[in-house]
Formats: sequence, C-alpha cells, structure tokens
Amino acid sequence: MTAPSNGDNERAQLLRLAMQAIARTGETPTRAALAKEARMPRARIDAIFATDDELFDAILEQWYAPDIAIMEEVIESDLPIRRKFYEFFARRFRRARERFRKDPAAFAVYCEIGTDKFENVRGYIDLADHYLSELIAQAQEEGYFAGLGINRALSLINQMVACYILPQMLMILDEDKLAEDKLATIIDTLFDGLSGEARGAAPVAGLRIA
Amino acid sequence: MTAPSNGDNERAQLLRLAMQAIARTGETPTRAALAKEARMPRARIDAIFATDDELFDAILEQWYAPDIAIMEEVIESDLPIRRKFYEFFARRFRRARERFRKDPAAFAVYCEIGTDKFENVRGYIDLADHYLSELIAQAQEEGYFAGLGINRALSLINQMVACYILPQMLMILDEDKLAEDKLATIIDTLFDGLSGEARGAAPVAGLRIA
Repeated sequence: MTAPSNGDNERAQLLRLAMQAIARTGETPTRAALAKEARMPRARIDAIFATDDELFDAILEQWYAPDIAIMEEVIESDLPIRRKFYEFFARRFRRARERFRKDPAAFAVYCEIGTDKFENVRGYIDLADHYLSELIAQAQEEGYFAGLGINRALSLINQMVACYILPQMLMILDEDKLAEDKLATIIDTLFDGLSGEARGAAPVAGLRIA
Repeated sequence: MTAPSNGDNERAQLLRLAMQAIARTGETPTRAALAKEARMPRARIDAIFATDDELFDAILEQWYAPDIAIMEEVIESDLPIRRKFYEFFARRFRRARERFRKDPAAFAVYCEIGTDKFENVRGYIDLADHYLSELIAQAQEEGYFAGLGINRALSLINQMVACYILPQMLMILDEDKLAEDKLATIIDTLFDGLSGEARGAAPVAGLRIA
C-alpha cells in the first residue's frame, strides 16, 4: 500500500466540504460554490472534478462506498444463508439509522436529492439488487424460495423488507418501530414462508361452480 | 331510508368543493376560502362547520369513509382467514392506486397534508390497526402467527405489507412494481412463515464457545 497522494487528500477534503454544504444548504454545490466554500481557486477544483456532474457522482460514490463494502463483505462471508440475508440488510439499516439520528435534517436533504437525481442513484440500487440476486440464488440452491424466478423473488423480498431498505422510512415511520429483532423475524418469515405456490390468499377466478 | 336533507346535500357539496380546492391549491381551505369558492355567505358555511378544524376533520372523514367501509365489510365477511387478510389490504390498495393514477399531483398533496396533520390522521391509523388486530386474533385462533403477541404481530405484518399500505409508496416506488399478485404471495408468506420462534436469521450472542 502507498500513502495517499496530495491529490487524493485534497479530493477527499473537498468531498467532505461538499457533503457539509449539502447538509447546511439543502443543495448539492456546484464547483463554483465549492471553490468559495474551500477558499480555493476555481481552476484547482476543476482539475479534480471536470464537470459539476462529476462532482455530484463523486459525492454519491462517497455516500454509498460503506454500503457497497458491507454488501461485499456479507456476500463473501461464510455465514449460513439466513444470517447472510439478515446481515445484508441489518448492517446497512444500522448505518442509515446512525446517519439519520446524527442529523435528521441533513438526512432528509440527502433523501430528497436522491429522489431528484434518481438517474444518478439508479446504478447503486441496481448494484444492491445484483448482490441480493446472488444471495437469492444461493438460498435457492439450498431449497428456499421454491418456484420463484430470481427477479420475482428479488421484487418480493425488496418489498417485504422495504421498511429497512428505503431511507425515507426512517422519516415516515416512528423510528423506534424499526428494530433489528423485527428484521430478523421478517427474514425467518421469508425463509419459511416465501414460495411461488398459491396457498389461498389470492382470489380464485372462474371457480363459481365447485 | 330517508332522502338526505338539504343540509346534508349542502354539506356534501361543500366537502366536494373543499377537496377540489386542496387538489388545486395544495392546501386545506379555511372556511373563509371555502365561502369564496362556493360563492356562499360565510355565515352559511359557519352554520355547517363551526371551526376550520371541524372542516378539516370532515374532509378527512370523507377521505377515509370508503376505507373504513372496506375494512368492516372484509371483517364481517365469511371468507377464509387468508382471503380476509388479502382483501383487507388489496381493496384499499386498489382504491389508493386509482386515486393516484387519476391525479398524481393531488395525491401527493393529500399525502403531504396527511403528514403535516398527523395528529388528525392518527385516529384512522389506529382504527385500521384495531381491525387488523381482530384479523390477527382470528388467525391465531386457527394456529397462525404462533408465539407472537398481537401487538408484535401487528407491527411485523404492517411492516411486511408497508408497500401496499403507505400511500407514499405509490410515489416512491415504480408504481408498476406494486401488484395484487405480489401482495397475495406476501400474505401467503406471512401465514406460512411468521412466528415468534427464532430460526437462525438473528445473530446469536454469547455463543463464542460451541
């Protein structure tokens, strides 16, 4: 490993400043605003971030990096499959909750920016879906989620754990209603209950005559 | 049955006007605004709605009346318990989706007002929880959701079907991701998988020595 170059240090510092600016102003800074913020010549900012969009994507990358690390760590772990599923969601939930508790107003701003710039965020959501699909395939090899295609299982699981995935839920629900032990019960429920077989909840069409 | 009195007619018309005003302006009208809207003397409005708050609560009652009718109808039906659970959520989801599709902007306004005036809305949420608790008790008599207190089961079920309960979800998610057949699978999953028994998802504390 080599020590980070000065350029790396400067980039990291600028991103930290940019994230503080977001929390304070409710908006993602342009490079012009960031130059002011950092009291740096604009040319030096431009040398690091070629466009405003590149700056925004760098902020996003910074925001999601720990989540990606969590997912990769869980996938590569040798935990049993149920434990993997739990950790896959619980660790990211805990991180979101920490951020939310630390600064609810800034958290709300990030959620809003994420909604507004959904096209930039989509790649990270797709990546999370990709990793979850890997876990689903692994579970299906062990006989779980029978009779469901991976995309179908993915959509159903994402919906059933939505309260622990979507950051907005920390604001919509009473935050203390969300808890790791409930998430664990939900994961166990999925493993013992989720399959493609219709078992009586859906209405049966065309069965007027018995 | 008796025909509605003129007073009832006028009240219903005023409420219709008030709801149109909400959709158009993004705000709940005061009685003064409603008088203007209806081209009616203020005194006549005041005779029907004694305070602005009373007007707002009447709008809310109007908004939720069909949901309450749905829940009561499902509870009193002689459907099997899984079918009851499904219809309890599916019928209200369908109604919300219809409203959303008809006028997404007005729907967003209603969601926002619901969040802002949460204290007024809470009674309706409590009522839905009350009805769902009745269904849970019925399911538990048939052996489902074993080992869970009713409040715990209530919280877990509300979380697992959150995508079909919370109106915001129609705006947060791609709307076409929400579908009745998925809801049916989620209900079947609950009935076959939800219990109070820990089955391996949760981390086990203090088990360092095997």
